[in-house]
Amino acid sequence: MLSLGGDTMKTALTAALAAILVGCAAVPAATAAPKDEAEIKALIERWRTAFQKKDVDGVMAIYGDGKDFVAYDIVPPLAYVGGPAYRKDYEEFFGAFDGPLGLEIKDPQVVAGDTVAYAYMLEHLTGTMKGGGKTDLWLRSTETYRKIGGKWVATHDHVSVPTDMASGKAVLDLKP
Amino acid sequence: MLSLGGDTMKTALTAALAAILVGCAAVPAATAAPKDEAEIKALIERWRTAFQKKDVDGVMAIYGDGKDFVAYDIVPPLAYVGGPAYRKDYEEFFGAFDGPLGLEIKDPQVVAGDTVAYAYMLEHLTGTMKGGGKTDLWLRSTETYRKIGGKWVATHDHVSVPTDMASGKAVLDLKP
Repeated sequence: MLSLGGDTMKTALTAALAAILVGCAAVPAATAAPKDEAEIKALIERWRTAFQKKDVDGVMAIYGDGKDFVAYDIVPPLAYVGGPAYRKDYEEFFGAFDGPLGLEIKDPQVVAGDTVAYAYMLEHLTGTMKGGGKTDLWLRSTETYRKIGGKWVATHDHVSVPTDMASGKAVLDLKP
Repeated sequence: MLSLGGDTMKTALTAALAAILVGCAAVPAATAAPKDEAEIKALIERWRTAFQKKDVDGVMAIYGDGKDFVAYDIVPPLAYVGGPAYRKDYEEFFGAFDGPLGLEIKDPQVVAGDTVAYAYMLEHLTGTMKGGGKTDLWLRSTETYRKIGGKWVATHDHVSVPTDMASGKAVLDLKP
């Protein structure tokens, strides 16, 4: 296979080793985080657009097959296990509102490694409920991701408001 | 530097390339996830032990320098920014209780990549408040991590209970 002469081979070997060592060394450090973080920000933006339109299929697209997905949502129960349970949660939530929703995201923080990532952000939710009541509150949202088949997929959601422990009430009027 | 003859060098080059390519190929696949996940489970267990003893220094040890840390805690405000703010939150929380706390963790899910990881779990908190009231509730906890200087550090916490949106009350009596 290899048919180079001695000196040429020395040069080739040195060059090959240098190139490969640079390549190897680059793997742990340069996990293409800016590209991955941009991909995750785009994923969040697709989710946000779908959420505002109450488009359940569009929203669910970020969760892949949802097989190992678990959500801790703002509403009970403690946990939604699996994509289908979370889809039902979205359907019930969207069904409670008239017309589109507003969802603004404040300064999302996205951190990506090679195959695992997370994001957290404050979200401003606005809308009109079917009974006529207005919803206007700030939520905390944490979302985690895995890269599966070269594509980032959301694997866990945690959405909440704080609780006033003295009164047992959810604190729905906080602003960042 | 290299002083091998032609044939010997061919063999050496082939062997070196093979060894290096195997090494390179192994980097993305084998991110030592089981080892990393075990390290993170040990971190959570150290935190749990310190939490039960109301040992603020022990608790804070998992957050490294806390420089980029942000927590969404069960109590207001929406966010605690930086380690010192979160330490104060822990101090106030621990100060509200007489004696040690109980904290049981149900089935923590830990997912680790090369330098980024996350965990989520349900936590059963029990204790006696200074006024004599008993605390006995299940929380949802999500925590994210980065590997910094070869060591896993917690970078973000999200702790909550669900909210009953009709009554505006926190739902404190759920069980998994």
